Amino acid sequence: MPTEGHTGRKIIYDEDGKPCRSCNTLLDFKFATGRITSRAALPERAGRESRTIPAQELIPGSKSYAKVEPPDVVELGNSSWNLLHSITATYPSKPSEQKKAEMKQFLTIFSHIYPCSWCARDFEKFIEQNAPKVDSREDLGRWMCEAHNAVNEKLGKEKFDCNFWAKRWKDGWDEN
Amino acid sequence: MPTEGHTGRKIIYDEDGKPCRSCNTLLDFKFATGRITSRAALPERAGRESRTIPAQELIPGSKSYAKVEPPDVVELGNSSWNLLHSITATYPSKPSEQKKAEMKQFLTIFSHIYPCSWCARDFEKFIEQNAPKVDSREDLGRWMCEAHNAVNEKLGKEKFDCNFWAKRWKDGWDEN
Repeated sequence: MPTEGHTGRKIIYDEDGKPCRSCNTLLDFKFATGRITSRAALPERAGRESRTIPAQELIPGSKSYAKVEPPDVVELGNSSWNLLHSITATYPSKPSEQKKAEMKQFLTIFSHIYPCSWCARDFEKFIEQNAPKVDSREDLGRWMCEAHNAVNEKLGKEKFDCNFWAKRWKDGWDEN
Repeated sequence: MPTEGHTGRKIIYDEDGKPCRSCNTLLDFKFATGRITSRAALPERAGRESRTIPAQELIPGSKSYAKVEPPDVVELGNSSWNLLHSITATYPSKPSEQKKAEMKQFLTIFSHIYPCSWCARDFEKFIEQNAPKVDSREDLGRWMCEAHNAVNEKLGKEKFDCNFWAKRWKDGWDEN
């Protein structure tokens, strides 16, 4: 297992000795797991990062920050599901009572402060009717998948098969 | 002010009568504020949504979900800042004592459960050394901007000028 990635950044490993997905770039993660050997394998992100921003689009006084609009409801939703599902992916398999209480409290506060007010109310209602299952990572991962499906249903989207929650949010789709 | 957007979705307004950014799609928001009149003005997202996914990339049994990899540290970071800054944008100007306590607790728990372990420890340290300023939206928005800048600095990125926090995360860059 390498200790340094392509970028020179240190590669972070989980307690079980596997490279940590949410602690490394995808490039370094794939390098550490032997799936790629060269930087050329990930052209998209490299391309995005090196785009030159026209001067009139830059924030006054800044060399690199463009005048990006605040996230809309779709971007905010996608971002928040990214975070929430990733949180379930690193939740302990056998959480202490304190960890369980903390997670319940987090979800309750989340439903109070989520920026989209009608989404927040819907999530609050979902929690009231479907108490968060915090007894294990598997329980919480499935519960979050079902919470997400309640929103998918409301939006007329296909439901996600929650049997795949761990592949989608924790392990990825490769065999190794 | 229109009540329905282009998609047929109801347009959500804030208490001050302005269209709510984090409650509407960018398309509907721009429509409600009179900045666009036609769907053609936003080709990027429309293009992304209508992409056909090759069958071998789909999750078994699914018609629309591709085998997307779990977020890496960069995607997770971007997603989480999207959420955290948007939360500051809708935080009350004059929060109750309960709201203040809730926000402090949220940030503390966030620093415990954030999926990237080393990022979480850094955020926890930042909070210890820079107590969250929760007395008003402006205070919290600036505090979050400074928390983000501490990470920018660590990553060798340019610091964001926090005088622009509200334009970047709440109001946008247009004059009206």
